[in-house]
Amino acid sequence: MNSPVSSPALPTYADVVAAHERIAPFVHRTPVLTSAYLDALTGASLFFKCENFQKAGAFKARGASNAVFGLSAEQAGKGVATHSSGNHGLSLSYAAGRRGIPCTVVMPRTAPQAKKDAVKGYGGRVVECEASTSSREAVFAEVVAETGAEFVHPYNDPRVIAGQGTCSRELVEQVEGLDAVIAPIGGGGMVSGTCLTLSPIAPGIRIYAGEPEQADDAARSFRAGHIIADDSPETVADGLKVPLKELTWHFVKNHVTDILTAGEDEIVAAMQLVWKRMKIVIEPSSAVPLAAILRNPDIFRGKRVGVIVTGGNVDLERLPWGRS
Amino acid sequence: MNSPVSSPALPTYADVVAAHERIAPFVHRTPVLTSAYLDALTGASLFFKCENFQKAGAFKARGASNAVFGLSAEQAGKGVATHSSGNHGLSLSYAAGRRGIPCTVVMPRTAPQAKKDAVKGYGGRVVECEASTSSREAVFAEVVAETGAEFVHPYNDPRVIAGQGTCSRELVEQVEGLDAVIAPIGGGGMVSGTCLTLSPIAPGIRIYAGEPEQADDAARSFRAGHIIADDSPETVADGLKVPLKELTWHFVKNHVTDILTAGEDEIVAAMQLVWKRMKIVIEPSSAVPLAAILRNPDIFRGKRVGVIVTGGNVDLERLPWGRS
Repeated sequence: MNSPVSSPALPTYADVVAAHERIAPFVHRTPVLTSAYLDALTGASLFFKCENFQKAGAFKARGASNAVFGLSAEQAGKGVATHSSGNHGLSLSYAAGRRGIPCTVVMPRTAPQAKKDAVKGYGGRVVECEASTSSREAVFAEVVAETGAEFVHPYNDPRVIAGQGTCSRELVEQVEGLDAVIAPIGGGGMVSGTCLTLSPIAPGIRIYAGEPEQADDAARSFRAGHIIADDSPETVADGLKVPLKELTWHFVKNHVTDILTAGEDEIVAAMQLVWKRMKIVIEPSSAVPLAAILRNPDIFRGKRVGVIVTGGNVDLERLPWGRS
Repeated sequence: MNSPVSSPALPTYADVVAAHERIAPFVHRTPVLTSAYLDALTGASLFFKCENFQKAGAFKARGASNAVFGLSAEQAGKGVATHSSGNHGLSLSYAAGRRGIPCTVVMPRTAPQAKKDAVKGYGGRVVECEASTSSREAVFAEVVAETGAEFVHPYNDPRVIAGQGTCSRELVEQVEGLDAVIAPIGGGGMVSGTCLTLSPIAPGIRIYAGEPEQADDAARSFRAGHIIADDSPETVADGLKVPLKELTWHFVKNHVTDILTAGEDEIVAAMQLVWKRMKIVIEPSSAVPLAAILRNPDIFRGKRVGVIVTGGNVDLERLPWGRS
């Protein structure tokens, strides 16, 4: 099974429980932080689940670790591969490094050197392709043919979704009486994991997704009732440009209460607010939920709201606000 | 007693215990964070006591709260005053706001508007002076004469030192078996509080101070055996420019193992390393201890080291590294 799974099976909550046990030695049980200032500002009680403190700097370490440590010894020997210039590539390299197996990440030649170095820093191999989808697919097929590596998709993979579901499992253990949880949505891996976990164990918690207005394919899909993919969206929340796929669409369609959007300036302002008031480094994608809460105060006022801070990998030398 | 205390009495450890009980409702018991990456880099086990998450963004909230909440009702009615354009002014305003008493902070006309706004945001009053010491003293004397406010010095005050001592008291409760603690040194309030607490309850823990090479008055004082004040030092660690005073000199002289310095580039690199790897926002002063550890690896290798992260108040639009 080296090629992308065409009709992957839906994961179950039992898969989340198994994933949690499997990955516990390799990922952090991240803390939940609060901010009196942001509570006063929103009129809600916000509980920030800090996956920016996660291994490799993002929640993606959960799903990647679940995929890697669930492999048979035989498959593990051939390694894993993915195409991602973002947190998933980094996280897969991290997880493979911990298991001591090969990992290949196909990345565009044009990706920042720092991202390539980060993958290599965890022991992964970077294979460059051109920026086009056709080049990426051709190069990736070559890698898999040569190595026999297992493809781990960034989100349309039941192992990955089950791994991401461990985050909300911790959150409901850490915070009692949540009324809602909100997470950013790109491909929908984190939101799907959240649905997978909460719908059986805490069905009263409403699940919201936050999405950049300029990459609102999930919100439009949600309203249309079928997957709509954006054509090359541009947003500061660069982790959220990818479209939903069949597995994640299943969870979004069936379990999400609403998808709320935020504008670019709102995302940057929310990001800066978190840095300034909470003293934590979060990436732009992670600021989208707070931006959505600030835009929709009536939905959240008086509620206890879990906010998934998905990651903290940001280029400190290219922050999305100007120098004064 | 409205004028600066000329011969203040030394605080005792009992004062720290009393301070801890007094300020507990108004300050955070801040978390201790670790970093596998920084441990591997230094060969030590580093335990970061995160006062950047403290109320008002810095440990100064501890000492200021102790001073404010220890006032008699009569004195409290007249309020408090200080001269500080940094974290102490902000923290005193915070504490006074929590008690509901007046607070006046004398600040140079040239101080950043953001700092003035922050003091006002907590309910404090800003009175401007010229940048010279003579203007500051004259304006401050006027404020005290008019209001009868109690002067709370940023560090040469036994109430303030006892308050800062609560930080290390928490640290030794949170982390077992520490070999050393290192904190930045400017006026010496945090280092003195650390000495005040550790010397009676954990005398085996060595106490180090980290200081910018370009503002190394404490290191030179330590070697000379008497207080030496710098003449207008310039450093990125702008919280550490002030000189030792008699009370803090007492603790430094008697209880500190060594004062280690770090260069400007090393401080900025350490700051960036913490932001990047730990995903927390720390101010330049707070990076000095890590910079000193990286410069002196042999002292700390194999040791369990508490690192006091003193604050996280930094102008996000004027970070001390360039855009690439």
